[in-house]
Amino acid sequence: MIDIPDGSLFGLTNLPYGVFSTPGTEPRVGVRVGDSVVDLAAALGDEVFAQPALNAFMAQGHDRWVQVRQQITELVSGEVPDEVVHPVAEVRMHLPIEVADYVDFYASEHHASNLGRLFRPDSEPLMPNWKHLPVAYHGRGGTVVVSGTDIVRPSGQRKAPSEDTPTFGPCRRLDIEAELGFIVGTGSDLGTSVPVDEFGTRVFGAVLVNDWSARDIQAWEYVPLGPFLGKSFATSISPWVVPLLALEEARVEIPPQSPEPLQYLKESEPWGLDVELAVSWNGHEVSRPPYREMYWSPAQMLAHMTVNGATSRTGDLYASGTISGPEKDQRGAFIELTWGGKEPLSIGGEERTFLEDGDEVAITATAPGAGGTRIGFGEVTGRILPAT
Amino acid sequence: MIDIPDGSLFGLTNLPYGVFSTPGTEPRVGVRVGDSVVDLAAALGDEVFAQPALNAFMAQGHDRWVQVRQQITELVSGEVPDEVVHPVAEVRMHLPIEVADYVDFYASEHHASNLGRLFRPDSEPLMPNWKHLPVAYHGRGGTVVVSGTDIVRPSGQRKAPSEDTPTFGPCRRLDIEAELGFIVGTGSDLGTSVPVDEFGTRVFGAVLVNDWSARDIQAWEYVPLGPFLGKSFATSISPWVVPLLALEEARVEIPPQSPEPLQYLKESEPWGLDVELAVSWNGHEVSRPPYREMYWSPAQMLAHMTVNGATSRTGDLYASGTISGPEKDQRGAFIELTWGGKEPLSIGGEERTFLEDGDEVAITATAPGAGGTRIGFGEVTGRILPAT
Repeated sequence: MIDIPDGSLFGLTNLPYGVFSTPGTEPRVGVRVGDSVVDLAAALGDEVFAQPALNAFMAQGHDRWVQVRQQITELVSGEVPDEVVHPVAEVRMHLPIEVADYVDFYASEHHASNLGRLFRPDSEPLMPNWKHLPVAYHGRGGTVVVSGTDIVRPSGQRKAPSEDTPTFGPCRRLDIEAELGFIVGTGSDLGTSVPVDEFGTRVFGAVLVNDWSARDIQAWEYVPLGPFLGKSFATSISPWVVPLLALEEARVEIPPQSPEPLQYLKESEPWGLDVELAVSWNGHEVSRPPYREMYWSPAQMLAHMTVNGATSRTGDLYASGTISGPEKDQRGAFIELTWGGKEPLSIGGEERTFLEDGDEVAITATAPGAGGTRIGFGEVTGRILPAT
Repeated sequence: MIDIPDGSLFGLTNLPYGVFSTPGTEPRVGVRVGDSVVDLAAALGDEVFAQPALNAFMAQGHDRWVQVRQQITELVSGEVPDEVVHPVAEVRMHLPIEVADYVDFYASEHHASNLGRLFRPDSEPLMPNWKHLPVAYHGRGGTVVVSGTDIVRPSGQRKAPSEDTPTFGPCRRLDIEAELGFIVGTGSDLGTSVPVDEFGTRVFGAVLVNDWSARDIQAWEYVPLGPFLGKSFATSISPWVVPLLALEEARVEIPPQSPEPLQYLKESEPWGLDVELAVSWNGHEVSRPPYREMYWSPAQMLAHMTVNGATSRTGDLYASGTISGPEKDQRGAFIELTWGGKEPLSIGGEERTFLEDGDEVAITATAPGAGGTRIGFGEVTGRILPAT
């Protein structure tokens, strides 16, 4: 039996999937158990896992996900041959999915209100549409990268309110957004939509997302068509995909919604999730964003995203938007934590407003698992390199 | 020799690539010559063409594109075996590329001004950033479809200014956007950017784009993060990719830019394009949008899109945004042609403001080719089906 340390966040109630390689071998699908990675193609003899992305397995659908989870549970509860088990410290993790479309929502009322106050100080913080629909935009699928990928400081046009014309140069307000991302396992056809209650069978799992944001570039470019270069330089995700099947115990009611949402957004079963994130800046924890406070559920997001008949595809990634709770130390972006840079944080004795070159950010998360356990999402990290 | 009718828009100076199939065969790459399609895998014996998308060929790079164009010219100037030639009327055309990321620009000053007046009647029509950078947003790559695909009328949330709350239902203001799309052949790495003068070697070719738009859904959802469901239900493209190599004679200066663009947007060679579009509504021509009037060039668009270090990939599609000229009959969207629905058009004796079920739209285009010829882009068509 694989040794699972006491209190491990990767016990038998979690079993997240990822894509790993060992030196000299090709990337393939593995499952994490304790501090080990089990090579699924080798252990189960199924070629669907001998691929550099989870997409082929995800496309097999919900019944198969249930079956494989059961198989893995049985496998790792018995004797597992040494040659299919690798210490997690000795493997390299890769992007777990081939990303189809990437959508970023804006589902935290606290975050949207804070950003509204900071970006549009003369207007109501929440737009009139915000409580009627989960606002979202498409991001750049091609720049979704795996945790640990260095982030080159983006350059672009910035214009401070005090300046008459924009200048070109490295971003001066580089920020993070701590989010939860959902991965579509089985998609839907053009001209059809996904009912809100099909979330649980169509979505394969969840990852942590850091949607790096260049606030100065974003502020100058985003009216009227939304964020573009301020976001598209990189979006990091955690390497371990936590199966939705592992998150049953984490399900909670979402906060009350008023006004009542339109019919296509009404869930018959709750899909709020009690996931607790933690954000560290150069090793110092600066925030604990609570996912359970999100106004819109991920089931509502998927229903909304496809209600116009848009296709969904295996490998679609949609993220929640920044997770911010009601308390100051629950905010998931530095622009909120430092109130637009006006209230610096002390990070190990150094003052910080936005990210400096060499800074490193790590986002982690845990949630309740079956049988009183806790399960982990691992982490999404990234270090800032100077602009080129 | 393949027969090329006099005045054909698909003579030897065009040679656009597409993906076709004949009954019972797999989609593969062909080149159009007159009213024929030449099966390139069969004719040239190269497996890179025996694929259902142009991506593998495009990824081989500019030198190879030049070489293959030369090979094809020699091939079709001589005797071509009958078995590799198919009448265009007997083949089915498929989506020519596997779409990576899809970006939509907003590069026509006339269109942006008109939309500004219609969507934000109380503000300056052009935003302060508009003449400093080519405004754009990411669209949904998964819903890019080939010409001829039926378009199911999207449903969604709409709120007319006269209504207090949104309602759910079929789009009441279904529109088109006539655009030119550019396909990236060879991409660029994360953390690097594409210099404006590399457009000519990195972009493989151009297609016609109809970016279907649900104006009522768009108007309600788009503040502050931009268009989402109002656009993501479908984007149609023409099946024939006109190589950039065929567009040398079409190159013109873009209109004067003031203020002077920042350095990374300064072209040393002009990449304006003298492409003339024509829009037909149920067979009646309603507009002739002139691409040469576009404020931002496609080279500037690519440089801007990657200036923050965002990856570009083989198969990236970026579109110009609606092409509207200064004259009323040069506008590329019905919302402009009917001035927000207030000035109906007469279409074969019927009044039209926005699209009705059963309506069909066709967009075509031509440009100057080498040696005094004209070359064609074929067409992008779509018919509206009722909401489901």
